[in-house]
Amino acid sequence: MAPPLADARISSTRLWGDLMALGEIVEPGQPYTRRSFSAKFVEGREWLAARFRDAGMSVRIDAGGNLVGRRTGRRPGAATIMIGSHSDSVPGGGRFDGIAGVIAGLEIARALADNGISLEHALEVIDFLAEEPSEFGLSCIGSRAMAGALEESQLEQVGPGGETLRSAIERVGGVPGRINDARRGDIGAFLELHIEQGPVLEARGLDVGIVTAIVGITRLELRFVGEAAHAGTAPMIGRRDAAVAAAEVVLAVRDLARTLDARGEGYFVATAGVVDVRPNAANVVPGEARLVIDARCENTSSMKRFVDDLRARAAGIAAASATELAGFEVLSDNDPAHCDPQLQQVLLASAAAVGCSAMSMASGAGHDAAFLSRVAPSAMVFVPCRGGRSHCPQEWSEPAQLVAGAAVMLEATLRIDRAALRANAEGDR
Amino acid sequence: MAPPLADARISSTRLWGDLMALGEIVEPGQPYTRRSFSAKFVEGREWLAARFRDAGMSVRIDAGGNLVGRRTGRRPGAATIMIGSHSDSVPGGGRFDGIAGVIAGLEIARALADNGISLEHALEVIDFLAEEPSEFGLSCIGSRAMAGALEESQLEQVGPGGETLRSAIERVGGVPGRINDARRGDIGAFLELHIEQGPVLEARGLDVGIVTAIVGITRLELRFVGEAAHAGTAPMIGRRDAAVAAAEVVLAVRDLARTLDARGEGYFVATAGVVDVRPNAANVVPGEARLVIDARCENTSSMKRFVDDLRARAAGIAAASATELAGFEVLSDNDPAHCDPQLQQVLLASAAAVGCSAMSMASGAGHDAAFLSRVAPSAMVFVPCRGGRSHCPQEWSEPAQLVAGAAVMLEATLRIDRAALRANAEGDR
Repeated sequence: MAPPLADARISSTRLWGDLMALGEIVEPGQPYTRRSFSAKFVEGREWLAARFRDAGMSVRIDAGGNLVGRRTGRRPGAATIMIGSHSDSVPGGGRFDGIAGVIAGLEIARALADNGISLEHALEVIDFLAEEPSEFGLSCIGSRAMAGALEESQLEQVGPGGETLRSAIERVGGVPGRINDARRGDIGAFLELHIEQGPVLEARGLDVGIVTAIVGITRLELRFVGEAAHAGTAPMIGRRDAAVAAAEVVLAVRDLARTLDARGEGYFVATAGVVDVRPNAANVVPGEARLVIDARCENTSSMKRFVDDLRARAAGIAAASATELAGFEVLSDNDPAHCDPQLQQVLLASAAAVGCSAMSMASGAGHDAAFLSRVAPSAMVFVPCRGGRSHCPQEWSEPAQLVAGAAVMLEATLRIDRAALRANAEGDR
Repeated sequence: MAPPLADARISSTRLWGDLMALGEIVEPGQPYTRRSFSAKFVEGREWLAARFRDAGMSVRIDAGGNLVGRRTGRRPGAATIMIGSHSDSVPGGGRFDGIAGVIAGLEIARALADNGISLEHALEVIDFLAEEPSEFGLSCIGSRAMAGALEESQLEQVGPGGETLRSAIERVGGVPGRINDARRGDIGAFLELHIEQGPVLEARGLDVGIVTAIVGITRLELRFVGEAAHAGTAPMIGRRDAAVAAAEVVLAVRDLARTLDARGEGYFVATAGVVDVRPNAANVVPGEARLVIDARCENTSSMKRFVDDLRARAAGIAAASATELAGFEVLSDNDPAHCDPQLQQVLLASAAAVGCSAMSMASGAGHDAAFLSRVAPSAMVFVPCRGGRSHCPQEWSEPAQLVAGAAVMLEATLRIDRAALRANAEGDR
């Protein structure tokens, strides 16, 4: 096993102190809320920009509204190594989701600076704009822009007070009129550290997860129409109860997902998270039911099989319950994003070199890295979080867990700089 | 088979005309809404009172707010034969539920008067106050009062604009300060005609249903608490999905009810009409679920078995889904009300005598007769309604179907007057 390249050390005190300091810049009385485009979000970014400058980086906001700190590389014209995540939160969110990835990037830049290490490649630390679903009905706004995937029509989406996304991006320093300037072709490697937001690493007692793919998400809406009837006077035989059909589907979704997950062809989960029954009154046999199914998978063939199987099951359930399957609609359907295999190898080797236990795993949640993977080799490092909890004030990772993840990222940055990226950068990326 | 006693004939034109006329006295633009205590309700009763007087009856409103038309009997001090139902409707209700029973009573009084038939017993035609769930959170207000079951505390329940039920009863002519005066001990027989509100008579092509019992209703609330989790990052194994538990219960309720109904020990139905899942978001594994179950049965032993079996099944479902059965609560539990066996026999014989096909059946819905049965021998005649639909503007019975039901009631009234009731009335009722 190769010894670690990094002489530099991640400072636990500094990394943790920054996380807690940013955790103070939140809406009063709403721990720990820092919604994109809000005053607290802008204040947080001003704080971040000051830290970026303290670390010797130049700071700018790109056309897509992303906050970028840049450390020049020794070799002019070489590709950029980018590290980061996002500083916005969901309402009532935690202090780690996204933020840990931005602070890890900052800490890596500082560790290099402290030890006088200069890289061949430029290093950029990034805070992507609005990764969480924003008030404009869109998520991953900054990383979409960087991937050239933010549409003109999306810029016209309207948020609170009638403000357009275009105007909001401008307000936080972006240049929506030149949104294509945000698209990048010079990134040789993108690395994102993130809390797992699930229970696997903690349960297995592992230090880091190296992400194989960010799952594709398919959302389905199913609607059953039966016949509302008097709960007292409609005999059991002859009922057309839409809630019974919906209940059968909830169980079918669970069973199909378990089967697909157990096949060993990649991570698979599916959830019936929305169940609406009408009229939802104690004394009325339900006449209508609506379900929204969220299915996630790291390969498209399993997803196709799930959708086909569920469609067949739903038709059978409708027939057996004398209801009509009035809708089976694909609300959205995103393909999985695969992490770069070479970067995954570098991260696994880096984990071993710095003494961290690791496993490969899929990400069940969406991340900016999914958009970045469209324009650059991208990879992610997961760190454990307590109880797998996220998007809540109780969200928590231990300082040592975050330091371990950042140390793997630092080691990988040095390895990429010396080896793998050099080849990439000399290509025509 | 004994020939019919009745020379008198029910007038289809008159009965139908009255139903349609009352169907005009409803809220403008809200067919066919005549809510208890409303201006339209009072207007409808003024119209009814005039028809009662036209039919030679004296008219009063009793202490419980019931509208009563009375035709004196030949024998002073004999028990009273009472026929009627209610004239109030649910919001957006129909023209037949309740109203058909009041008009049938009126038409019977008119048929007797037209033919110069005087009865041994006094005949009262009644419009019970507020059978449908009222704005004061209470149903069957008038028949409760007549059964001595309207509590002082219920009189203080508050409705729209802060009005108490006490004040509302007074406003429509009742005397809540002497509510016990409404209680009756002189009724020798109570008969109620009602639309079936279910599909059975229509499906079997029968003229009338003779009601054996008005079901007891038990309402249960079940709550499951699992663990809300990210729909992407929580693996299938290890989930604690409360919607899965709820779905299993919905199917268990259906299966248990079918089994009990098929045992031949009386009518049984059960419905999971309310299904609430939290947070009810597409990307969150449901952490909580709440169900309200409505079970109805004509014998208490089957109901006990249902509740016991469901409790056991729910505990097993909680264990299997790693959720907690956080609540299994009996919200309400009313015993069935049995119709008087002698009156049922009279009604069956009367149906045969006037050439109407009949079946005995339980009533799955509640009725004023359930309260009357506490103080008087009571029975009901159901007539078919189209598609079993009720509590909607489409509620419909054909004139001939209503006439058949009223003819059975008229024949039964004459038979009761000559035979069965005489014995009852001489007792100490």
